[in-house]
Amino acid sequence: MEDIQSRSDRRDVPLERVGIARLALPMMILEKSEAYQHVVAECSLMVEVPADVRGAHLSRFVEVVTEWANRPVSSSELRSLLEETRRRSGSVSAEAEIRFTYFLPRSAPVSGMSGFLDYMCEFHGRLDGEGYEFILGAEVPITTLCPCSRAISEVGAHNQRATLEAKVCYADGAFIWLEDLIASLEAQASCPVFPILKRADEKYVTETAYENAKFVEDVVRDAVLSIERMSDVVWCAVRCESVESIHNHNAFASAERVFAPSPRRADVPLANAVRGSV
Amino acid sequence: MEDIQSRSDRRDVPLERVGIARLALPMMILEKSEAYQHVVAECSLMVEVPADVRGAHLSRFVEVVTEWANRPVSSSELRSLLEETRRRSGSVSAEAEIRFTYFLPRSAPVSGMSGFLDYMCEFHGRLDGEGYEFILGAEVPITTLCPCSRAISEVGAHNQRATLEAKVCYADGAFIWLEDLIASLEAQASCPVFPILKRADEKYVTETAYENAKFVEDVVRDAVLSIERMSDVVWCAVRCESVESIHNHNAFASAERVFAPSPRRADVPLANAVRGSV
Amino acid sequence: MEDIQSRSDRRDVPLERVGIARLALPMMILEKSEAYQHVVAECSLMVEVPADVRGAHLSRFVEVVTEWANRPVSSSELRSLLEETRRRSGSVSAEAEIRFTYFLPRSAPVSGMSGFLDYMCEFHGRLDGEGYEFILGAEVPITTLCPCSRAISEVGAHNQRATLEAKVCYADGAFIWLEDLIASLEAQASCPVFPILKRADEKYVTETAYENAKFVEDVVRDAVLSIERMSDVVWCAVRCESVESIHNHNAFASAERVFAPSPRRADVPLANAVRGSV
Amino acid sequence: MEDIQSRSDRRDVPLERVGIARLALPMMILEKSEAYQHVVAECSLMVEVPADVRGAHLSRFVEVVTEWANRPVSSSELRSLLEETRRRSGSVSAEAEIRFTYFLPRSAPVSGMSGFLDYMCEFHGRLDGEGYEFILGAEVPITTLCPCSRAISEVGAHNQRATLEAKVCYADGAFIWLEDLIASLEAQASCPVFPILKRADEKYVTETAYENAKFVEDVVRDAVLSIERMSDVVWCAVRCESVESIHNHNAFASAERVFAPSPRRADVPLANAVRGSV
Repeated sequence: MEDIQSRSDRRDVPLERVGIARLALPMMILEKSEAYQHVVAECSLMVEVPADVRGAHLSRFVEVVTEWANRPVSSSELRSLLEETRRRSGSVSAEAEIRFTYFLPRSAPVSGMSGFLDYMCEFHGRLDGEGYEFILGAEVPITTLCPCSRAISEVGAHNQRATLEAKVCYADGAFIWLEDLIASLEAQASCPVFPILKRADEKYVTETAYENAKFVEDVVRDAVLSIERMSDVVWCAVRCESVESIHNHNAFASAERVFAPSPRRADVPLANAVRGSV
Repeated sequence: MEDIQSRSDRRDVPLERVGIARLALPMMILEKSEAYQHVVAECSLMVEVPADVRGAHLSRFVEVVTEWANRPVSSSELRSLLEETRRRSGSVSAEAEIRFTYFLPRSAPVSGMSGFLDYMCEFHGRLDGEGYEFILGAEVPITTLCPCSRAISEVGAHNQRATLEAKVCYADGAFIWLEDLIASLEAQASCPVFPILKRADEKYVTETAYENAKFVEDVVRDAVLSIERMSDVVWCAVRCESVESIHNHNAFASAERVFAPSPRRADVPLANAVRGSV
Repeated sequence: MEDIQSRSDRRDVPLERVGIARLALPMMILEKSEAYQHVVAECSLMVEVPADVRGAHLSRFVEVVTEWANRPVSSSELRSLLEETRRRSGSVSAEAEIRFTYFLPRSAPVSGMSGFLDYMCEFHGRLDGEGYEFILGAEVPITTLCPCSRAISEVGAHNQRATLEAKVCYADGAFIWLEDLIASLEAQASCPVFPILKRADEKYVTETAYENAKFVEDVVRDAVLSIERMSDVVWCAVRCESVESIHNHNAFASAERVFAPSPRRADVPLANAVRGSV
Repeated sequence: MEDIQSRSDRRDVPLERVGIARLALPMMILEKSEAYQHVVAECSLMVEVPADVRGAHLSRFVEVVTEWANRPVSSSELRSLLEETRRRSGSVSAEAEIRFTYFLPRSAPVSGMSGFLDYMCEFHGRLDGEGYEFILGAEVPITTLCPCSRAISEVGAHNQRATLEAKVCYADGAFIWLEDLIASLEAQASCPVFPILKRADEKYVTETAYENAKFVEDVVRDAVLSIERMSDVVWCAVRCESVESIHNHNAFASAERVFAPSPRRADVPLANAVRGSV
């Protein structure tokens, strides 16, 4: 049978990314507790296709990523996956994105009652002629309480659930636990959210958020500073979007920050290329 | 060319619903102000297929619904659309669902500054041997402020955006404006939400919500009672779901209520059959 | 601190359902292989609130469902969960819905290359004065190839990915494996879908779908008949929706079927009450 | 009442973007036919906040964008909107994104029967010290038919619905109609999709797609070349993602292309900053 994808192409249009998206696979993530957490990963895997090649053999991409099914995956395994992808596709560069819901135990602040919170997390990797780059991402649900509403009102202050997202790129050889990234983000909220809250806890979180009013702008700035304090981070992008309780639209703020003199990070964030839009 | 859909079928399995879903069309809705509002409608149209017929000619469904593109649609036009569908498909029953974002002007409570709020609305119609039935639906964004949090806390109270949905079925010959249904639902919130709020308005909505603490249970009950006060409603279903600001899960309550002695309404809500799941 | 939720209520509006929705938790599902699969469950848990009670203590719901975190859950555990919910809330009825992505290994039809397919699955349970009822649900991705397009065209036939969903309620004491339900649904497609397909496999699935042309109507009927052949099923609802490759809208068909003389199943499907709309 | 947002900030973290997201508004778009089409726009509006300013007055953003409600909006009005935003917020830069469903009439290829197709479209604008930049975007549903499947199979070939997205940035003073951009994209499909297809049309589209087999790689390359032929385009990004009918994952390809020697376009696409993730 003819191998159409390997044919030459005369249109002279290189393709930055060709691959598979939205492939679900069971994977494992090493917890800081040293246990493995089973996750449901949504995987994307892609390569560059030069101007003179017709296309990529996508079935090989599924084969490569399936080899990591039910196995532990972190920055170094992602590098191996990308090396294998480059080898089998003959491509100059390969990129992958793995998104998964990650659970952490969270105890109520007064009663201590424990449950689980879910965080959407991401691993992004890119391997090309300049080397390997890894980005760790987490989306953390938090409470924000409006400083303006508090300052001008006799009683109360509007507050709401918000999502605080961060992506961090760290130096080769370094390692950052999702547990640490998530905890550093939660600490920047007006108050963290919790799975179980008894009455004494509800009093505590209500009063804590009130004492700690923050705009989305404040949350993003404080998150950038807290990430700066983590060693080895060379770059971060942070975004907070709040489901305003007094409107039917959202408020958001974002910042990007380079900490190391010359990070190699590509200009276009990986995740955006894979998901949403062009 | 052979007409495969009209062939007979020997499997002896009648199909309750066969049709098209997620068809987008521009339509017009008569406002209470007597102007027409242009909307983007997501349309579903379906018929019953008896056990001995192979299938339905779905292209005719698109033809029928397209005749209403860029034209005013309400309960009576939906009935005509269903009559035409039955006539052209030879079916005993026909159902349609039309969902659209509807805008209403909303002025800030103190400054009076005006903007637009968007509401997801629905028209459902069913025409069968027992007659015609029409259901009007609206999803209204509101603020809820927790009575428990307020009662136990020294300062503040958690609050959040919530969605209050209602579906109402009214007697043949009656008419209920979306404007009236939406206003009656907004009035049951801890406080309505607004598009533009200047500082004096923000103080007002913060304090109003605080003075008017409500659980989702309260909102649903008050909404049911407010719908009961509208004349001609024979049945309603109400649901409120709040994006809890202190959790990463939601709270909800729902109630269904029959007001007239013998409404003809089918047991299975139309919308559910079309959208989500079986 | 005052217990506001337990207060009496004078509005005389009973609430069919009050609870929590969209709570994520890690759970385990027993595979037919006798291994346990770790899943990410989206949980809803709710009770009836009678007319004279103000509300439900939702934190208890989170406590109850969290007790099943990282533990095996099936029909019988769901019953225990509902019994505990009723006991702690003093409610007459309790309902739960658990949705999760479930993986099964699937081998390519010619090369035998193996990967994983993901299926959205659901457990629904309801416990009330009449007893316990359990519904098992699965959404299966399939290929459908249009019989009309094939019959009238010189070459080719349009085909597309479709979703075939089924919910089945089975007799108390019976047990149906997700593996068996999913396999019986996949067998009704023009061709199943696969994670990895090499060239010889792609030829096979292309030709198989072509030889086995089916409308969504055909798929639903054949699925109903295949479920009828499974012992112990007392009721099913089946729905197929295809992402038509020649349109920007979808085609769908659905059927509901009662197999046993007098199933106890409530008229309103549980899932619909929890998710989408009222 | 105190103006908290205008306070100075000592954290030394500039914020690239602060604003509102997911605000729905009715707007009008000038059609190439010279009529105005009423659309439901999802608007985002944001500014840069320098390191020494605490935050932005988001209510002013809603005021500014609401002034364009029910009025025609295109590249030049977006520029005025951004100038007004900069003036009222005192910001160095302002950006906006407007997304809307746009309808075009589409006639079946043989019967000529006419209906409407819906396209998700976008206007992005950015105004800063370097000037004004406008990006036009469209997502077009198409059919792709697999060349490999066709080449190796005795009969048939797998095909599916795909989405072809393009964003184009054109020189100041130029103007590109959405109608022209969409038509140039549809022409690159294996076959366009249509709202109404009678049997003779279905034969035509089935055979046309078969004769015109294309990978997503082919579609993207041909789209890039067709955009290159439109005058005045200085940059484009193109992406095609197909809902593979034989898999439960998608295939995609993307390319970015600079046509003019030195386009001013910022490195980070606007849309990505607003929607999805950081």
